[in-house]
Amino acid sequence: MADNSFGTLFNVTSFGESHGPGIGCIVDGVPPNLPLSEALIQPYLDRRRPGTSKFVTQRQEDDQVEILSGIFDGKTTGTPIALLIRNKDQRSKDYGEIANQFRPGHADYTYQMKYRNRDYRGGGRSSARETAVRVAAGAIADLFLKAVLGDAYQVRGMVTQIGPHAIDRSKIDWDERQNNPFFCADAATAKEWETYLDGVRKSGSSAGAILEIVADGVPVGLGQPIYGKLDGELAAAMMSINAAKGVEIGGGFALSAIDGSVASDEMRAGDNLETPRFLSNQAGGILGGISTSQQIVVRVAIKPTSSILTPRRSIDRDNQNVVVVTKGRHDPCVGIRGVPVAEAMMSLVLADLLMRHKAQCGFNL
Amino acid sequence: MADNSFGTLFNVTSFGESHGPGIGCIVDGVPPNLPLSEALIQPYLDRRRPGTSKFVTQRQEDDQVEILSGIFDGKTTGTPIALLIRNKDQRSKDYGEIANQFRPGHADYTYQMKYRNRDYRGGGRSSARETAVRVAAGAIADLFLKAVLGDAYQVRGMVTQIGPHAIDRSKIDWDERQNNPFFCADAATAKEWETYLDGVRKSGSSAGAILEIVADGVPVGLGQPIYGKLDGELAAAMMSINAAKGVEIGGGFALSAIDGSVASDEMRAGDNLETPRFLSNQAGGILGGISTSQQIVVRVAIKPTSSILTPRRSIDRDNQNVVVVTKGRHDPCVGIRGVPVAEAMMSLVLADLLMRHKAQCGFNL
Amino acid sequence: MADNSFGTLFNVTSFGESHGPGIGCIVDGVPPNLPLSEALIQPYLDRRRPGTSKFVTQRQEDDQVEILSGIFDGKTTGTPIALLIRNKDQRSKDYGEIANQFRPGHADYTYQMKYRNRDYRGGGRSSARETAVRVAAGAIADLFLKAVLGDAYQVRGMVTQIGPHAIDRSKIDWDERQNNPFFCADAATAKEWETYLDGVRKSGSSAGAILEIVADGVPVGLGQPIYGKLDGELAAAMMSINAAKGVEIGGGFALSAIDGSVASDEMRAGDNLETPRFLSNQAGGILGGISTSQQIVVRVAIKPTSSILTPRRSIDRDNQNVVVVTKGRHDPCVGIRGVPVAEAMMSLVLADLLMRHKAQCGFNL
Amino acid sequence: MADNSFGTLFNVTSFGESHGPGIGCIVDGVPPNLPLSEALIQPYLDRRRPGTSKFVTQRQEDDQVEILSGIFDGKTTGTPIALLIRNKDQRSKDYGEIANQFRPGHADYTYQMKYRNRDYRGGGRSSARETAVRVAAGAIADLFLKAVLGDAYQVRGMVTQIGPHAIDRSKIDWDERQNNPFFCADAATAKEWETYLDGVRKSGSSAGAILEIVADGVPVGLGQPIYGKLDGELAAAMMSINAAKGVEIGGGFALSAIDGSVASDEMRAGDNLETPRFLSNQAGGILGGISTSQQIVVRVAIKPTSSILTPRRSIDRDNQNVVVVTKGRHDPCVGIRGVPVAEAMMSLVLADLLMRHKAQCGFNL
Repeated sequence: MADNSFGTLFNVTSFGESHGPGIGCIVDGVPPNLPLSEALIQPYLDRRRPGTSKFVTQRQEDDQVEILSGIFDGKTTGTPIALLIRNKDQRSKDYGEIANQFRPGHADYTYQMKYRNRDYRGGGRSSARETAVRVAAGAIADLFLKAVLGDAYQVRGMVTQIGPHAIDRSKIDWDERQNNPFFCADAATAKEWETYLDGVRKSGSSAGAILEIVADGVPVGLGQPIYGKLDGELAAAMMSINAAKGVEIGGGFALSAIDGSVASDEMRAGDNLETPRFLSNQAGGILGGISTSQQIVVRVAIKPTSSILTPRRSIDRDNQNVVVVTKGRHDPCVGIRGVPVAEAMMSLVLADLLMRHKAQCGFNL
Repeated sequence: MADNSFGTLFNVTSFGESHGPGIGCIVDGVPPNLPLSEALIQPYLDRRRPGTSKFVTQRQEDDQVEILSGIFDGKTTGTPIALLIRNKDQRSKDYGEIANQFRPGHADYTYQMKYRNRDYRGGGRSSARETAVRVAAGAIADLFLKAVLGDAYQVRGMVTQIGPHAIDRSKIDWDERQNNPFFCADAATAKEWETYLDGVRKSGSSAGAILEIVADGVPVGLGQPIYGKLDGELAAAMMSINAAKGVEIGGGFALSAIDGSVASDEMRAGDNLETPRFLSNQAGGILGGISTSQQIVVRVAIKPTSSILTPRRSIDRDNQNVVVVTKGRHDPCVGIRGVPVAEAMMSLVLADLLMRHKAQCGFNL
Repeated sequence: MADNSFGTLFNVTSFGESHGPGIGCIVDGVPPNLPLSEALIQPYLDRRRPGTSKFVTQRQEDDQVEILSGIFDGKTTGTPIALLIRNKDQRSKDYGEIANQFRPGHADYTYQMKYRNRDYRGGGRSSARETAVRVAAGAIADLFLKAVLGDAYQVRGMVTQIGPHAIDRSKIDWDERQNNPFFCADAATAKEWETYLDGVRKSGSSAGAILEIVADGVPVGLGQPIYGKLDGELAAAMMSINAAKGVEIGGGFALSAIDGSVASDEMRAGDNLETPRFLSNQAGGILGGISTSQQIVVRVAIKPTSSILTPRRSIDRDNQNVVVVTKGRHDPCVGIRGVPVAEAMMSLVLADLLMRHKAQCGFNL
Repeated sequence: MADNSFGTLFNVTSFGESHGPGIGCIVDGVPPNLPLSEALIQPYLDRRRPGTSKFVTQRQEDDQVEILSGIFDGKTTGTPIALLIRNKDQRSKDYGEIANQFRPGHADYTYQMKYRNRDYRGGGRSSARETAVRVAAGAIADLFLKAVLGDAYQVRGMVTQIGPHAIDRSKIDWDERQNNPFFCADAATAKEWETYLDGVRKSGSSAGAILEIVADGVPVGLGQPIYGKLDGELAAAMMSINAAKGVEIGGGFALSAIDGSVASDEMRAGDNLETPRFLSNQAGGILGGISTSQQIVVRVAIKPTSSILTPRRSIDRDNQNVVVVTKGRHDPCVGIRGVPVAEAMMSLVLADLLMRHKAQCGFNL
């Protein structure tokens, strides 16, 4: 994978810093004749938009996307689609202090040491602001997948844990997600998180989260062997999200502790060979790196936001000890807005692998 | 990432099936003038070799590697290095039965549906046999890293959990690993695992495991932004290992549950800016996708071996219900031999990122 | 090579159509700390700009480039640099007629058949307008090469033939190029071309050209073996230019006809091994795909502009015979403005190979 | 393009030196269910085999290919296909002398300077021996294309010029090629070349050549925009062949000199839109980088073999002037055996672009 580029055939190359003129990307390789417009992309961006509740950053960005190329007559032409989102609410003065100091848990130190020239304003390139671009690109991937796979296909994400508080899985109701600012699929849990996060926010700290992204309606066969495995691509995709520190598929880490006689999913004949009945889904819909037609299930661990009001020990560019107090506007739990981002990454992976599958297995031999 | 190719600059393309003539790879892009020979690679392969204890497959393979190109005068020439390991102990008759049946938890069903022509003998391409190639390629990466980074650099792996039995982390002694067949860093835990695995084996079942791979002596600066992040590359690398279902960096999933005030690692001035003192290592040595100079820490969850003697329900190629009993020779805990494989993947990732870093940041501007 | 992306490490991904909102690119992988600004790029673009003489298209575009990312404090940061040039003088009404007809020699027919949705306005993506982006990206490559290789390094291009009229090579004076609108290195030849092209223009026809691009100060060692050869990369780069139909290196096609005893360049010892004295340059500065330290010499054949006023036979989208008369504004000899484009492609190839060389051979082993 | 790897989806990575244990490649991405065996590949290799006439090298190699992976039940499985050809007739003593000297026109100097460790035996990696691998890989590509495109599809190559002696194009009879050792499509011209080359050989010199490769039956639509153009890919492919110094498509360099009114190919309606009637083929079957359904025509200029018996001036590794006399066995005209190699490269390019086209445009949107 190239530095700022993702996907082999459905390829996204992104650019932009938190406080520069704008962020955006080029989506190359999109099949032609897919209906596409700014209006079709915008709803995806609106789900990730900052400033919508007190539990996310108060930065005000309307995240209006402009399509610069690749569309004609309301449909894709097969040529690269460039997307541009202008930055609007940059308050660079908020960050002047960190020009010379390295905030613990942030990329300040590593960017400075690697590149020797660092755009420190709002984290520069390492800011979560970059993820808006992924959501826009992921929207195109999602629209493409829907067009090809039909209504059975959908990607959905939720937060399943904030801090130490996990959702009660027996109560998951996907529709509940839109009723709270946490992408939480259970109203009672959402209430609990609200209380918890209020406390975290007031104490000047932050919280981590676990996200779960699932895809329905993915046919058997997506994923390429060894280094192009569906699970490998998903892991890379999810781990590229800011603050992600862990990824698991299906049963994940818990599989390590259970017995082999229950760890793999038994099968029974379905209507046809394409859709067998699996008696469980420990595999998270992936065997040998290839989709099984079951639900694809991925979970992502997001660490607590590193920007907190509590003073923390660090060093500066002169190798002197300092105490850093992070001001600026931040998400107390950056995992929340990670949901639409992780959904987008899932869509991008699936779109790419669908095209790679078509390329290799789409001939009648 | 291409299907069977790994790495942008330090590039490995592998081939081979469990019961075909042989397995191997081409390692392209290796810097010239690195001392290299079969004798230097072989010790790495010997650590992964099957048939060495009753806790791994009884298949007898001496895994002798032949270098076919790229070496002159005992050193690399900068041209591609081809490695070949002939298969010797294929007992294809063991597998006749599964030609038409899909073993639960294996790639049989997905390969059949995707490709319509499947080398079912020993799992074909999806067999863990393929990982010998990675170990051989990883050996070259490791030798390269040692040559450049010096003695402070090393990659080490261990098993930290088998089934429900985790190692007591306070007792970790890396040297202990060579005294038991589990890559276990604690003698008492190794005893416990021996008893446990004996039971698992006799009951006709299998066990999962968690691996931990750490790298010391990695300088600050390795990793490229966004999609070439060190953690993203590691996640893809580890998840490409057979039976891997989860990956985490540093604090990993546990970070989701702890407070932001302890989740990020505070810093104090060290001798110079290249080697600050971190007061903890929740980040696993990576911030913003770039190495911090701390120890790199990755954990991998390996599911229990899917090949077990216990009969299991499945279907066959005619979409009929069947009961599958897996014979053949198998690892009761495939995670054990995963250690040298995961070490190799770590080395491959680091070698590639070291070269990418040199390419971009090695100029005096 | 990806569809709209060029270069392995110094990587350019471009977008944009002739009559869309704008054109641009993302340049990823640029080393950090290179001084860069719009003002530094603009002079390169000005050399390619349309509307500057009667021998090029009369379309008025000021081709002002905006840098959207990747620069801080006047220098590159190592993160992707996005460039945007807004289109201004689109006269889409000029092209309404060709929505349904295929202009001979143009990409109308092939784009329509491949993609089924074609932005026919001004040739859409296949327009030479796209090459402005390459010039902008090439400017960055050139500045990078200058910073690393010093003053000895330069890339220069000229037109050596227009229609049947070739330059007298004994009279080449590079400085003369700026005194005429043809990038012609000889005043007398420029006069001849002026007369010839006036005639061509008035007759409603067009002329082809041959370009020659040379690079001085390229050190020995750039180019990777077999499929990353310097000549292979140059050939791909030059052939990707609109209307290019041939590429040759050094002696090129003429080498086929001469004797082996004069076709290869003899060598004599120079001051050191890095700079031998070659007694000729039939090789065009490249042996075995790797630069020799001699001048790199490439020639590119450009076919006559396909847009001419003379009526031509063709078909339309209903598979009916038609006669096409191309209106709109066009270059009577598209090869002229090809010079800065071909220079840019040379710079991009060299920058990429310099980085690839550094990555592989920059370690002290 | 990676150093020793070719193709995005139909991907070939090659290895091997002239005098090492063997040469070979991994062909990754081949669609499954293509009938394949050593017997199907061998005839392609036999056309390139050395030692078959006095006009090619007298080195005796039977070039038997072994398939190491990727085939089951006589058909491809979709997994990587590794091919191995053992070297047999290495006479390394022939080359002892050039360990320290740089043969003019060869890669000796550049490899030495770039890598500092050079396998000088027979040219090592830069030897034309490497091209056997391309022919083997190209065979698979050709078989794939035939399987998909049917009997109308074929790739054919010939030599059209040796030294100053060009074929009379009015007398071209493709079937005549097998009656002479020159891939010459005219008996009279073959006689002329025989006399000429006899003289060249006896005088201790060598001759250049021009090759022409054409593909029939390629449907409209292959080729990707801008940097994945069919002509760009062909140029890179052909220029990667040893001793190639020029490439042209269709009318090529001659187009530069003719009038725009005859340079582009007029069209008339055919039976359907997929197969229009073109009134000429100046474009060589490619417009805008995409195939037109006309015959694809490429020509390649091959310089005279640099290994000649005539003493030549050069330098050695101590930067001393020397006179080099090349012994060993060499092709007096390396262009001859370039024909099957160039055919193979054409097949590889087309197979890759067919798959890329399928990936992007194979969906019903």
